[in-house]
Amino acid sequence: MSPEPKPGTPYLSLDTPALLLDLDAFNHNVRLMAQFFAGRPTALRPHAKTHKCPEIARRQLDAGAIGITCAKLGEAEVMVEAGIDDILIANQVVGALKIDRLTDLAARSRTMVAVDDAANVEQLSAACQAKGVTLRILVEVDIGMHRCGVLPGQAALELAQKVAQAPGLQLAGLMGYEGHLVQIRDPQDRQTKVLEALRPLQDTRDLLERNGLPVEIVSGGGTGTYDVSGTNPPMTEIEAGSYVFMDSTYRQTRPEFEQALYILSTVVSRPTPERVVTDAGRKTISNDFGFPVPLGAPGATIKSLSEEHGLLTLADPDAVSLRPGEKMRFVPSHCCTTTNLHDQLYVIQDQTLVGIWPIAARGRAQ
Amino acid sequence: MSPEPKPGTPYLSLDTPALLLDLDAFNHNVRLMAQFFAGRPTALRPHAKTHKCPEIARRQLDAGAIGITCAKLGEAEVMVEAGIDDILIANQVVGALKIDRLTDLAARSRTMVAVDDAANVEQLSAACQAKGVTLRILVEVDIGMHRCGVLPGQAALELAQKVAQAPGLQLAGLMGYEGHLVQIRDPQDRQTKVLEALRPLQDTRDLLERNGLPVEIVSGGGTGTYDVSGTNPPMTEIEAGSYVFMDSTYRQTRPEFEQALYILSTVVSRPTPERVVTDAGRKTISNDFGFPVPLGAPGATIKSLSEEHGLLTLADPDAVSLRPGEKMRFVPSHCCTTTNLHDQLYVIQDQTLVGIWPIAARGRAQ
Repeated sequence: MSPEPKPGTPYLSLDTPALLLDLDAFNHNVRLMAQFFAGRPTALRPHAKTHKCPEIARRQLDAGAIGITCAKLGEAEVMVEAGIDDILIANQVVGALKIDRLTDLAARSRTMVAVDDAANVEQLSAACQAKGVTLRILVEVDIGMHRCGVLPGQAALELAQKVAQAPGLQLAGLMGYEGHLVQIRDPQDRQTKVLEALRPLQDTRDLLERNGLPVEIVSGGGTGTYDVSGTNPPMTEIEAGSYVFMDSTYRQTRPEFEQALYILSTVVSRPTPERVVTDAGRKTISNDFGFPVPLGAPGATIKSLSEEHGLLTLADPDAVSLRPGEKMRFVPSHCCTTTNLHDQLYVIQDQTLVGIWPIAARGRAQ
Repeated sequence: MSPEPKPGTPYLSLDTPALLLDLDAFNHNVRLMAQFFAGRPTALRPHAKTHKCPEIARRQLDAGAIGITCAKLGEAEVMVEAGIDDILIANQVVGALKIDRLTDLAARSRTMVAVDDAANVEQLSAACQAKGVTLRILVEVDIGMHRCGVLPGQAALELAQKVAQAPGLQLAGLMGYEGHLVQIRDPQDRQTKVLEALRPLQDTRDLLERNGLPVEIVSGGGTGTYDVSGTNPPMTEIEAGSYVFMDSTYRQTRPEFEQALYILSTVVSRPTPERVVTDAGRKTISNDFGFPVPLGAPGATIKSLSEEHGLLTLADPDAVSLRPGEKMRFVPSHCCTTTNLHDQLYVIQDQTLVGIWPIAARGRAQ
């Protein structure tokens, strides 16, 4: 590895491929989302699966977030280790090994977890009883994404009743994620569909409360829907994640947030005037939602992305330099899976390096 | 993280998602490829980008490989650190930071690198002269993949002459990779096209030799083409990588190698009889060549792969159990990018864990 670059290093002198964070854009995004939720009844619990970086989680909390969301138990462990206390694991935690770790975590943090299965509730309860800890639980309701979650209404009520009666568990509320709607381009269409999706969640909340069950928390929402889910019942907290970084996909629906995440890459070959080959391929930039977008190279389009190469075609070869050794930036099509390929963020302000933030939960998929 | 499992642990007791290596299948693959090259004039220099694991590189060398191939300088550094001496970096190494590291590496190992640019040759030469080291060089020739590489014939000759005259550099030969042909399904079609692609490389070799330049090495080839490129001039060494692991894509063209790499996953939700959700998504299994293939679940097909979930649909819900907590295996569609998502291989024999091998060069993209 190259020696760790010092603060003040021009970003174009960094070794590549490197994951860059534009600090001003990042600060704008953190501030804008915090301002949106300031003074509202609904709070922000940003999803840390996007960044997996305790430094970013701390900054989100400092700006007013009430806690963070994690996708995986392993991410939550890293965050608790870094001193972050209030965490929702927005997934089911299943199996003896993980339940043992989860109850350890609940003993030293305010950790919540989602459930959608009665047997899982019994296992969590038994483990909590054995350790003398209390674990806060959200019942996950399927509000149309058709991934995890019980059906709204009676099924959710029955599982919530089971949680409420289970020793060691505390029913904290509901979770419902409109993940199938977050990327709808048209704002009006998106709003209509989100409001439709929230209705059965609201009905479920009402049903639980009519049955004497407390619903302190209703958690869901994303960067694509925060302004609808965050301003309408029944959500009490929004799990948006991508807004801190953004990507070429979300920028098309959410222009109010700035692009803060880039891949810095080096041209390694220019075999013909039309062809440029860079050192950033699929092991560096994810391809979930299409190719990354090259910047500063008019007429350049990605032709293919192999493991360690980006292959670009130039419409006007004379318009750009791009000799081997020159650097260029790319905007990823999906920030979350791109970040998971890297161990650190190179934080840039005024074209120079101002910090290196470890992506401490990178790869913590267990 | 879960406590590190001990040897003898049944593989179904491992925490998930986990990258499993079937040791018997792996041994079969290493042995079969070694046997193929035993006694032939062409040698095997397996590509370590597939596994990024020094333990595997050592086993390939023990079986008769003459050295290893790396995609990135960072991978080569990890391998040299682990005691492996003879390495081809089958790419251009560009920029002052990397050239400084490369010349350091050349001072303590038999490292070769590919070139396709005159200015890069001058930079490498200057750095080698400054450090008093000699770096072995292969001139990369584009034999039809149209990524990196100079054109065959005169352009290759001119660059080779430049290398031969450059102080600190030693012209070791040529590199040409028929990467655009390795996945052709029909063996006859594949053979015909590979032989066509090798012809200009042979002509270039002849041209260099006629001009008094030594061509000790001609390197190329892959798992899809080893039996053609490895048995015809001008190749002297084959860079096949995927054969050690295999994946659902390569298994369709190379059934003589066994599937050795799997993802072990846990069912985290079974919200409806038809729907199974696992804990292995795109942060665990790559999706380059399509969805991974679920095993042991007749009628199960992947409907979507999100960041941390595999969503399966069951054609016959009564035919399988797959309750939350049960485990299942998947075959990745691309072994190389899947392995790059993991920090260790869980090595399995007779259904039990026999070792954990660090993927020490995971993420070493610089």
